[in-house]
Amino acid sequence: MNHFDLPAGFRFAATASGIKRSGKLDLALICSDRPASVAGVFTRNRVTAAPLQVCRPRIAAGRCQAILINSGNANACSGEQGLQVARQSSSILAQQLSIAEELVAVASTGVIGEQLPLAPFERGIPELVKALAGDQASAVAEAIMTTDAYSKLASARIENPDGAYHLLGLAKGAGMIHPDMATMLGFVLTDAAVAPALLDSALRRAVQNSFNSITVDGDTSTNDMVLLLANGANGAAAIQPGTAAAEQFCRHLERVLLDLAKMIVRDGEGATKLAEIRVTGAASDETARIAAKSVATSTLVKTAFFGEDANWGRIIAAVGYSGIEVDQNRIDISFNQVPVTRNGLSTGSELEARATEVLKLDEFVVQIELHQGAGAASYYTSDLGYEYIKINADYRT
Amino acid sequence: MNHFDLPAGFRFAATASGIKRSGKLDLALICSDRPASVAGVFTRNRVTAAPLQVCRPRIAAGRCQAILINSGNANACSGEQGLQVARQSSSILAQQLSIAEELVAVASTGVIGEQLPLAPFERGIPELVKALAGDQASAVAEAIMTTDAYSKLASARIENPDGAYHLLGLAKGAGMIHPDMATMLGFVLTDAAVAPALLDSALRRAVQNSFNSITVDGDTSTNDMVLLLANGANGAAAIQPGTAAAEQFCRHLERVLLDLAKMIVRDGEGATKLAEIRVTGAASDETARIAAKSVATSTLVKTAFFGEDANWGRIIAAVGYSGIEVDQNRIDISFNQVPVTRNGLSTGSELEARATEVLKLDEFVVQIELHQGAGAASYYTSDLGYEYIKINADYRT
Repeated sequence: MNHFDLPAGFRFAATASGIKRSGKLDLALICSDRPASVAGVFTRNRVTAAPLQVCRPRIAAGRCQAILINSGNANACSGEQGLQVARQSSSILAQQLSIAEELVAVASTGVIGEQLPLAPFERGIPELVKALAGDQASAVAEAIMTTDAYSKLASARIENPDGAYHLLGLAKGAGMIHPDMATMLGFVLTDAAVAPALLDSALRRAVQNSFNSITVDGDTSTNDMVLLLANGANGAAAIQPGTAAAEQFCRHLERVLLDLAKMIVRDGEGATKLAEIRVTGAASDETARIAAKSVATSTLVKTAFFGEDANWGRIIAAVGYSGIEVDQNRIDISFNQVPVTRNGLSTGSELEARATEVLKLDEFVVQIELHQGAGAASYYTSDLGYEYIKINADYRT
Repeated sequence: MNHFDLPAGFRFAATASGIKRSGKLDLALICSDRPASVAGVFTRNRVTAAPLQVCRPRIAAGRCQAILINSGNANACSGEQGLQVARQSSSILAQQLSIAEELVAVASTGVIGEQLPLAPFERGIPELVKALAGDQASAVAEAIMTTDAYSKLASARIENPDGAYHLLGLAKGAGMIHPDMATMLGFVLTDAAVAPALLDSALRRAVQNSFNSITVDGDTSTNDMVLLLANGANGAAAIQPGTAAAEQFCRHLERVLLDLAKMIVRDGEGATKLAEIRVTGAASDETARIAAKSVATSTLVKTAFFGEDANWGRIIAAVGYSGIEVDQNRIDISFNQVPVTRNGLSTGSELEARATEVLKLDEFVVQIELHQGAGAASYYTSDLGYEYIKINADYRT
């Protein structure tokens, strides 16, 4: 990623503070050269991590200048002591940057239920502040990884009559094999100025069609959060809601988040395939989404993908128990446009053999047409194989 | 199981009809010497198999004398042709037994989406009728297996002032690793006479606390069914609702079903452990059940069990996203009474090491105390290991 693609006025730094015993990068800082407008989306889990409890009211106030993120320890189920560490680390950072503590956001990811020591922050934060640089975004993406096999960055440059601007997204997450997954963190930075009301609604819409179409609204981890910072460093007037520029901003934001979301699915623990479960012809977008989610989260469907078995019976069963009304005699299913089911019945062994070839691809679309109306939605999922068990059975050992 | 334990007036037979290419037993018959009262519980999946569609109105009429069950093919997603096969097989059986067709129940389990041929029934049914015998219940239990590692039978003899009676339960199911599992079939026979209203309510209550505490209400397969037949062959007066005898009947019925349900979990595909997730101190039994289900169906929790890792963080996270209101600072968790979490915090590495020893057992209880009220519920689950992937990725090949 060259400098041309990066939003102006943001700097980055990462270090190995010792939280991870492996000695890998585990502490990261994202810093804007001025207070930015901010919007956030947080986990709906009733059990929330300490950094979330500290961060959420600050984000709600709408302004943010720095984000401090550690990996290796989630600082969740850590009680009053965990809250103290979250507050003290943000206080140290605010002092070092000479900014108000309310402008600091904190995030953690890693094991739940262990106390996070303060010492790594005391050592690491001064180092981070000293090392801040415009070209270190990829180091930050690397430092926030836990079980991720690779770091996740996506960007866009958007031309606008009022002046070009950029979007840069960083994310971590790889446990997306099931909704009760490991933490997902996402940070999106733009040098556009964006009206606060637009910032919030744009983020919610984009998250719904990206991160929330791989994970699930209520079913998130104790630490999940997505922050969107707009610092206006491009010097143009603020993008206002209801304008063509706002639509353009939303579209590109959604594309950047969807790119990151797909990277997360593809990096699903032990995943070898990325499948889009596309439900069409539903009574509404909402019912389409319920059916798509039901198929995407079925372990039987996901193990069939791993086995490269075009087992549409499991798919139609998952649609059936999703809870939406369906007529089983009007369901069509295809794999990359190879029809395997018409009117709820098999199309025969020849087409199924062709569908099996589709399943050998790294990426494919399962389309489920319900013939009820115009509702449509997509959910992204991975296959479920031996590696998932290996990673999750041995995670803490 | 000796004859003494069996309900009077029921006979059994099983044969290898050729539906399973392996040549194993795949067609079974249960027959009462007189029409019995019947109650049934069926899948709530909107996609239902042909035998269910044929069977359900007959069971609703309240009388049944014979049950014909095949394994190896679910006769689901098989259209009009599948319905014809279900109807014709029951018609052949009714003729052979000289009973009304409405007294025949049919059930199928196996692969979804393939046409079930009639020929195996034409050949097999006369054989079954000829072979009917009082001591062949275990052959029936074997013939209804699919991925089951072993057959499942449970029984009880109940002393009653009006005359002793028996309960015999037969079940199949092994995919109980997740709610979207393979088919669960259960058949319970008693030689007591039971008032129809009691029969139905007793079955619903017993299923809720057994089969529906391993699988889930809405999340069942296209073929699931549980039938309870009471033929009154013990000659005593009918058990009436609201009596002590009714309570006794319900209690023993629930015990027989729970025995079968635990066998099913223990035979979970690739399962090596049986865990009871017991939630106590909830605001209500209903919220306790929601929380217990959330933990029991979490793939991260189940893989931790497989890895013998007392990872209570995943358990508390699953309680948190279950949707019920909880105070994370008042949650206690123990493994077989070894406390690992008090007030939402770790109890330390020594107790966690002891809990890890508990996880090495084949069977253990995870108790989650919420300190909200008197609500309690249990859910039974297995661990999730490599074998599950192997079985389900290769099921059809």
